[in-house]
Amino acid sequence: MERRKFLRGTGAATVAGAAAAASSFSAPAIAQNKRELKMVTTWPKNFPGLGTSAQRLADRISKMSEGRINVKLFAAGELVPAFESFDAVRNNTAQMYHGAEYYWQGKSQAFPFFAAVPYGFTATEMHSWIHHGGGQELWDELAADFNIKPFMAANTGVQMAGWFREPISSLEDMKGLKFRMPGLGGEVLRQIGTSVVNLPGGELFQALQSGNIDATEWVGPWNDLAFGFYKITKHYYWPGMHEPGTTLSCGINKEVWDSFSESDKAIIEAACGAENNNSLAEFNSRNNDALQTLINEHGVQLHRMPDEIMKQLGEAAGDVMADTAKEDDITRRVYESYMDFRKKAVAWSKRADQGYMNIRDLPFDYTKS
Amino acid sequence: MERRKFLRGTGAATVAGAAAAASSFSAPAIAQNKRELKMVTTWPKNFPGLGTSAQRLADRISKMSEGRINVKLFAAGELVPAFESFDAVRNNTAQMYHGAEYYWQGKSQAFPFFAAVPYGFTATEMHSWIHHGGGQELWDELAADFNIKPFMAANTGVQMAGWFREPISSLEDMKGLKFRMPGLGGEVLRQIGTSVVNLPGGELFQALQSGNIDATEWVGPWNDLAFGFYKITKHYYWPGMHEPGTTLSCGINKEVWDSFSESDKAIIEAACGAENNNSLAEFNSRNNDALQTLINEHGVQLHRMPDEIMKQLGEAAGDVMADTAKEDDITRRVYESYMDFRKKAVAWSKRADQGYMNIRDLPFDYTKS
Repeated sequence: MERRKFLRGTGAATVAGAAAAASSFSAPAIAQNKRELKMVTTWPKNFPGLGTSAQRLADRISKMSEGRINVKLFAAGELVPAFESFDAVRNNTAQMYHGAEYYWQGKSQAFPFFAAVPYGFTATEMHSWIHHGGGQELWDELAADFNIKPFMAANTGVQMAGWFREPISSLEDMKGLKFRMPGLGGEVLRQIGTSVVNLPGGELFQALQSGNIDATEWVGPWNDLAFGFYKITKHYYWPGMHEPGTTLSCGINKEVWDSFSESDKAIIEAACGAENNNSLAEFNSRNNDALQTLINEHGVQLHRMPDEIMKQLGEAAGDVMADTAKEDDITRRVYESYMDFRKKAVAWSKRADQGYMNIRDLPFDYTKS
Repeated sequence: MERRKFLRGTGAATVAGAAAAASSFSAPAIAQNKRELKMVTTWPKNFPGLGTSAQRLADRISKMSEGRINVKLFAAGELVPAFESFDAVRNNTAQMYHGAEYYWQGKSQAFPFFAAVPYGFTATEMHSWIHHGGGQELWDELAADFNIKPFMAANTGVQMAGWFREPISSLEDMKGLKFRMPGLGGEVLRQIGTSVVNLPGGELFQALQSGNIDATEWVGPWNDLAFGFYKITKHYYWPGMHEPGTTLSCGINKEVWDSFSESDKAIIEAACGAENNNSLAEFNSRNNDALQTLINEHGVQLHRMPDEIMKQLGEAAGDVMADTAKEDDITRRVYESYMDFRKKAVAWSKRADQGYMNIRDLPFDYTKS
């Protein structure tokens, strides 16, 4: 089945850059109660918001442990290629990875639920499910089969729908459109007849400029501004149904994790929790500024994705997710937990964040922006 | 001026319980590199979501520091009364407090901006302003004048508008209504002619039952379910414009803070950051469940506050905030930073969380709830 083939494919390189050659390093050093841990990442060195957050996490752990745990960060390709990070940690070539769980969907269809799925949780809803809705327990069970202990460690917030060379107004306009979107979001687009392609981030600008693709998503205003898509087209669409609050994660070799003292475990857990909060705050703040720059300095026009298209994509998303659940027992249980929590979360969000933000728009000249 | 008098009043005891008599304890113990720190709180012992989060924070710090910093928690009234927590930490009677900054508005009008203000930030917007929008720097400056180093440590999320004995449908219905709402939210209600009263949490049930008040806000479904308001009335209104994401904070005596090693500072900062994230996740998850219980088991009817009322309240909120800014230099600078960030944050939220959540409602039978 085409979908299966796609789903079992090479992973959803939504934000990861190219990977270079691997180098060789020695096993983790344990001397004088000091341990050196290697953290491999799926991001280029200091990639804004992703590589930088991974570096902050590594630095926090080293600092909080008074150097007992010294975490050394490797960008994608420095030690292993980006998408080999998972296996590298599984096999203790490295002891930690910083990446996004949907990159491991070739290992299990359950992994994307711990990063982002189309029409899924916002960042805060994800935090609730993981911390207080049974999510962490399922994630632990899933990852333990691969000798990994996972934590949420960063979040991009809601992503944008993307850049389109020409405006779109109907479902018809989406049919045959050459749209770069990896992962399950791409699969959802494919269901409505879009011609989905996947390309590494570094090739997007030229592909969109040359017309090899008609549209592309990337991340949000902050990262999209840096890539300069506004130089090609002014048509920028929102919101991104495909990644409504992407969780980035820190996975730790489980034997290494189990060897830590309770105190060091608490340090690593809190470092991940604090950086998760800080990362989402950074993405939103930088996106705030970048959105203004795109509009005011580069004449970018923001368009809301037409309701007709979003409705169809939502129905397709429901089908794709339900289909995923048939994969195996753990994926079914993850799917069911996710969907059960989602129903309640949507009902509360409507009265809470969503309800408040909608009503906030009513007062005259107070929320003009 | 009546408003000034109100604003300089006894503080906004939105969620704090009654305070009992103070006891006497010795100064912080420093022996064998182990320090015992007292954390006073504005919450009753183990009050769900507030006292429990303070306890988790204290436990985390003790655990992460391998007992070097042993944090002992005191509920409101155990060491000092709730609203004396700030002065207790300022004077080193205790070394940390866990509370909400709007309780200190008698010290400076700038403090409520670091907890919640009417029509202000959601929780995630607050995190962005504090971490990446200049908020923490202003907060540090403000609190340093009182010998305190502050951190965000928990968040209730969006609160509900409240429980009404009779349904309301127009601005006229709000005039003269005896509504319990403390703080700046109450001041905003007063501007549209509501008869605002303040009562401690423990007196709310009886006051609403007897008809001494016509309406009351409390927190959200989780805490409101526990108080049993549904036994009195089924009319539950959303959203709460008065506290759209209330930050709870940990304040540390600044001399004590300055005496910590860089490692211990990093531990305390990360403990606060991780617990801040965890607390918001807990409130939203418990609110998810409690909302379903209120509707399905207790026949509670959810009502959206009428647009006409929310529009007027929004305009009043703008006036009240602008008036606050005239207080002094630091309050003006906090207000200006907050409002400048708010403009950009509202613009981005519309395309991000708000935009996504609104569009999420479109697909058929996927978001039914």
